[in-house]
Amino acid sequence: MKRIAVLTSGGDAPGMNAAIRAVVRKAISEGMEVYGINRGYAGMVDGDIFPLGSKEVGDKISRGGTFLYSARYPEFAQLEGQLAGIEQLKKHGIEGVVVIGGDGSYHGAMRLTEHGFPAVGIPGTIDNDIAGTDYTIGFDTAVNTAVEAIDKLRDTSSSHGRTFVVEVMGRNAGDIALWAGIASGADQIIVPEEEFDIHKVVSTIKDDFENRGKNHHIIVLAEGVMSGEAFAQQLKEAGDESDLRVTNLGHILRGGSPTARDRVIASWMGAHAVELLKEGKGGLAVGIHNEELVESPILGSAEDGALFSLTDEGNIVVNNPHKARLDYAALNRSLAQ
Amino acid sequence: MKRIAVLTSGGDAPGMNAAIRAVVRKAISEGMEVYGINRGYAGMVDGDIFPLGSKEVGDKISRGGTFLYSARYPEFAQLEGQLAGIEQLKKHGIEGVVVIGGDGSYHGAMRLTEHGFPAVGIPGTIDNDIAGTDYTIGFDTAVNTAVEAIDKLRDTSSSHGRTFVVEVMGRNAGDIALWAGIASGADQIIVPEEEFDIHKVVSTIKDDFENRGKNHHIIVLAEGVMSGEAFAQQLKEAGDESDLRVTNLGHILRGGSPTARDRVIASWMGAHAVELLKEGKGGLAVGIHNEELVESPILGSAEDGALFSLTDEGNIVVNNPHKARLDYAALNRSLAQ
Amino acid sequence: MKRIAVLTSGGDAPGMNAAIRAVVRKAISEGMEVYGINRGYAGMVDGDIFPLGSKEVGDKISRGGTFLYSARYPEFAQLEGQLAGIEQLKKHGIEGVVVIGGDGSYHGAMRLTEHGFPAVGIPGTIDNDIAGTDYTIGFDTAVNTAVEAIDKLRDTSSSHGRTFVVEVMGRNAGDIALWAGIASGADQIIVPEEEFDIHKVVSTIKDDFENRGKNHHIIVLAEGVMSGEAFAQQLKEAGDESDLRVTNLGHILRGGSPTARDRVIASWMGAHAVELLKEGKGGLAVGIHNEELVESPILGSAEDGALFSLTDEGNIVVNNPHKARLDYAALNRSLAQ
Amino acid sequence: MKRIAVLTSGGDAPGMNAAIRAVVRKAISEGMEVYGINRGYAGMVDGDIFPLGSKEVGDKISRGGTFLYSARYPEFAQLEGQLAGIEQLKKHGIEGVVVIGGDGSYHGAMRLTEHGFPAVGIPGTIDNDIAGTDYTIGFDTAVNTAVEAIDKLRDTSSSHGRTFVVEVMGRNAGDIALWAGIASGADQIIVPEEEFDIHKVVSTIKDDFENRGKNHHIIVLAEGVMSGEAFAQQLKEAGDESDLRVTNLGHILRGGSPTARDRVIASWMGAHAVELLKEGKGGLAVGIHNEELVESPILGSAEDGALFSLTDEGNIVVNNPHKARLDYAALNRSLAQ
Repeated sequence: MKRIAVLTSGGDAPGMNAAIRAVVRKAISEGMEVYGINRGYAGMVDGDIFPLGSKEVGDKISRGGTFLYSARYPEFAQLEGQLAGIEQLKKHGIEGVVVIGGDGSYHGAMRLTEHGFPAVGIPGTIDNDIAGTDYTIGFDTAVNTAVEAIDKLRDTSSSHGRTFVVEVMGRNAGDIALWAGIASGADQIIVPEEEFDIHKVVSTIKDDFENRGKNHHIIVLAEGVMSGEAFAQQLKEAGDESDLRVTNLGHILRGGSPTARDRVIASWMGAHAVELLKEGKGGLAVGIHNEELVESPILGSAEDGALFSLTDEGNIVVNNPHKARLDYAALNRSLAQ
Repeated sequence: MKRIAVLTSGGDAPGMNAAIRAVVRKAISEGMEVYGINRGYAGMVDGDIFPLGSKEVGDKISRGGTFLYSARYPEFAQLEGQLAGIEQLKKHGIEGVVVIGGDGSYHGAMRLTEHGFPAVGIPGTIDNDIAGTDYTIGFDTAVNTAVEAIDKLRDTSSSHGRTFVVEVMGRNAGDIALWAGIASGADQIIVPEEEFDIHKVVSTIKDDFENRGKNHHIIVLAEGVMSGEAFAQQLKEAGDESDLRVTNLGHILRGGSPTARDRVIASWMGAHAVELLKEGKGGLAVGIHNEELVESPILGSAEDGALFSLTDEGNIVVNNPHKARLDYAALNRSLAQ
Repeated sequence: MKRIAVLTSGGDAPGMNAAIRAVVRKAISEGMEVYGINRGYAGMVDGDIFPLGSKEVGDKISRGGTFLYSARYPEFAQLEGQLAGIEQLKKHGIEGVVVIGGDGSYHGAMRLTEHGFPAVGIPGTIDNDIAGTDYTIGFDTAVNTAVEAIDKLRDTSSSHGRTFVVEVMGRNAGDIALWAGIASGADQIIVPEEEFDIHKVVSTIKDDFENRGKNHHIIVLAEGVMSGEAFAQQLKEAGDESDLRVTNLGHILRGGSPTARDRVIASWMGAHAVELLKEGKGGLAVGIHNEELVESPILGSAEDGALFSLTDEGNIVVNNPHKARLDYAALNRSLAQ
Repeated sequence: MKRIAVLTSGGDAPGMNAAIRAVVRKAISEGMEVYGINRGYAGMVDGDIFPLGSKEVGDKISRGGTFLYSARYPEFAQLEGQLAGIEQLKKHGIEGVVVIGGDGSYHGAMRLTEHGFPAVGIPGTIDNDIAGTDYTIGFDTAVNTAVEAIDKLRDTSSSHGRTFVVEVMGRNAGDIALWAGIASGADQIIVPEEEFDIHKVVSTIKDDFENRGKNHHIIVLAEGVMSGEAFAQQLKEAGDESDLRVTNLGHILRGGSPTARDRVIASWMGAHAVELLKEGKGGLAVGIHNEELVESPILGSAEDGALFSLTDEGNIVVNNPHKARLDYAALNRSLAQ
């Protein structure tokens, strides 16, 4: 393989730039040429493709976001979109592609591979909810950003004796809420993976203020459960009488200079993706499991370790979906006394 | 004066702890004893008063919030509340008080002084909206926190080509929005001190994306204008078609370790308040003007430089209210091209 | 077991406070009482021991350093010191001890266990060089602090076209240098685990400036190799003519609010140490391996997984010493083009 | 004036990029064209000059260092160097220049003006030691970086009961040491503007540990006094027996994303420099005095407010040199009890 391309797709995550840099530098060190594709699959179809040299990725490892831009592009799920993209790849002499993004991005990588253009996926999303890897690029940064924000909220909540509901991102997975909650010493953590009893939440608040001498109370809530405002509404309806405030950390968690860990795993995964392409392999997603690099077929049978399978009806099944660690939820309950 | 007390009142602000430390340390170095009062005027009335030594304020200069807690206590506007507080001060042998807080806190200080207990105010609020000082304690930290957050939002907004409305605190004053907007390179800044034309805001967004090759747009909005959600709604109604997101930085701006500048001016003001009390002076508010310490009568005539005057009907008039620098708004317009 | 104690020993590390908090809160939730011991084994012998409640560890999770203070106390290697310590434990009715620290601290824990006081070790050191765990508490924070500092040095080095030698802590282990080097995009990383050729280092600098269009060059050096000054001297003697500067990050790496990861693993390990003591187990060190909690005998045979063994001559052997990942060194070489 | 250029010269400082951006954007908004000159006067002489548009300075406001690079170039003090530079300016049709840097950079600006090319200086240096302005660009960032580092050192020094000597930049001016010292609650601050008695320094250390119950001691030292190592040596010779460590914060202070304040004053000064050039004015340095923009003649008579005068022998005299606030030194002494 003489020429490969790299793109970022789906929601952006801190560390994507570090992964792009690793792909470019590693490929060049292996004697390959690298092209960047702007705005994910949308840019591929538009031909927004250009050569990337070693210098162009200098000073990018510390930057948040993705300098290749990102976009959601559902049209690439259709054959027509795929063929249009492939035409552009051919035009630029590109033989393989590294795709940095989430689940949807992986499916595009699978399609390209099926059409004869080996593509390898790298998990980039702050939510940590991608199958086939213990950690996704961006998760560590998002958690640290959340913790820094909650540390600040603690200053003001303890000065005033308040209850804060802090909403953090995490549509399907409670990982950000769990890690940020434990690390910030949250009094309660509410995640989509676990049922909660609003009356118990209220009685815990009351108990903390009245019987345990606490002068503030922090609840970390994953957006996948409901919005912070809706949750506060439920608290009030269930009898909470504390001085309640809601903060939604929102998109702040998506930005910022990546942490050391996100930069290291992004570099590691990026370099490995190039090694796989160099061997002509595609249709794979890189991951980290037990502190080692792993790769999994994106599509195939569960027995072969594929991330996704197709049912006879053509529906996609996630074979071994990511699960948040609920022992962390139990850990926090024992420490939030 | 042999024994003084210190309290924090109103909304908390980063740097209040640095001011408390300065009051305590300076007073001790002047041979005085210092008592802390928890929860502002509420704690004064409740007798939540205790001796503070030099060691107790060690390691506090870097902490956000206020370790004396704060509270709003409208009852202190009434004579009854004031007398109850004074009884407690007498009980503890306290002869003077340093009050760290905002406008409302100053009025309590004035009342105490009138009752024979000299009290000096120190301006502590992130909003920078207190008369008699160029800067309030907490403002510099709040602005830097806002800028760090907007820098992160820029990462994600530029990755996706989005428009972000970022709501920052500032009920009456646009200072946080103006400083944070200029410092983060915001495309537009909306403050309560300046009219805006929603159609002009929309056309500027459009112009940036379509004619100036910008790939994102950031609007910093002071909460005193309206909420971020309401503003976004107006944008949509006025025809904005960009990919719009709203983030409310909210209470994050109130917390966090204070910046060097907030710690320095808090230390400086705290020490000066003690010097005034030592001379038996009260009914004054400390400030910084043109990089020098100043003090102003809290209540009196405008000619004497008092911050507030009473009308014949007994209403309070702010003689020389704080004004945000609108030349900063003009500066930003010329740089946001 | 009804009453346990906790101490920190050896060099301090960010996250030790989070571990103390977890020990205290978990033990209380299990119905036990907890005592704190100041200044490690020195304080144990001095009887600097006091009860710790749930409130005392509130607001400690985010603090760097250790609020129980730390100290090196070689006298505890002698029987006399151990017996003096045990006398104090008996006096306070303490039945088990959690020891947070490094190798030396573990040996004390072993001795206490042998004398009938079950003690469990938790790995706390920024160097990441303790057997029996993939990660030590404090390592992640130290790496991130180093990366933030190197990011700043990059700003100034690239502005001036300079070469920087950045010395980071790590007496025996190159982990901090490797992680910080990869994450900051260092041009070269020098660690004790790998030989280096000073002439090759010089020619790489020259090549970067002359042939690769780089405008600066950053070398991360582990202190275990030699000091930054000594290394710079060698560079000059080997013919380096670049505009060279040396920065020793020194003790900055030891402080600061711990990262989310350090707080989470500290919490997890602290809670687990209590569970082990509750079962009456001692002489064990807690660790994290493959993202799961593990525990290892501190002293025993290699076959039983003990961290250390005694030779017939009574010398201590580390059975499975920590090794830095040299594949990370190779990774960086391929990316530093 | 239709076309101007901008360069950075001397030591780099955070906020220089914000000033460049402001020059470019303001000039464009005034209908002018802007060229960037790389590597200061060296690049001017080499003709390393290129057009700068509005987009090229996008996303630069938050970056440390200077993307135009900087260099010291003593040759520009000679007529020959100046003429070579002017030739290049003519070649590119440049009619005026904004020079961001320190004293030496100002002299170049003066020469250019004398040769018919109006040049305006902007004070950029972390040391805050430039005449004609209360604050220089970069100072606020450097102080905050120092404070963050000292806060970290405090964690480890208090854990171990140590004395730390922290060396900070400041060759002639103690401003960084004074501000960082007050803000970090340093126990002693040693600056070039004030004599110190090493025996008094030692006795203060001893007093703190023995009589005041302090468990650590931090001394902030400006490099202009002597190196941290030399100071520690003097301490030891004068009888200090505490557990002493030295940290030199070094070049870290030069880098990093600028603070809000540095970005704002850089933006303000940059825009003002363009306004002056637009009026055809040169030979001036922009400054901030009492929170307002001011400008001063670089060379002239003291009566006219010029920063520098020439003696009859042709030597340069600084008319009103910057002075560190020694009342800050006194303030710290009263608070470091």
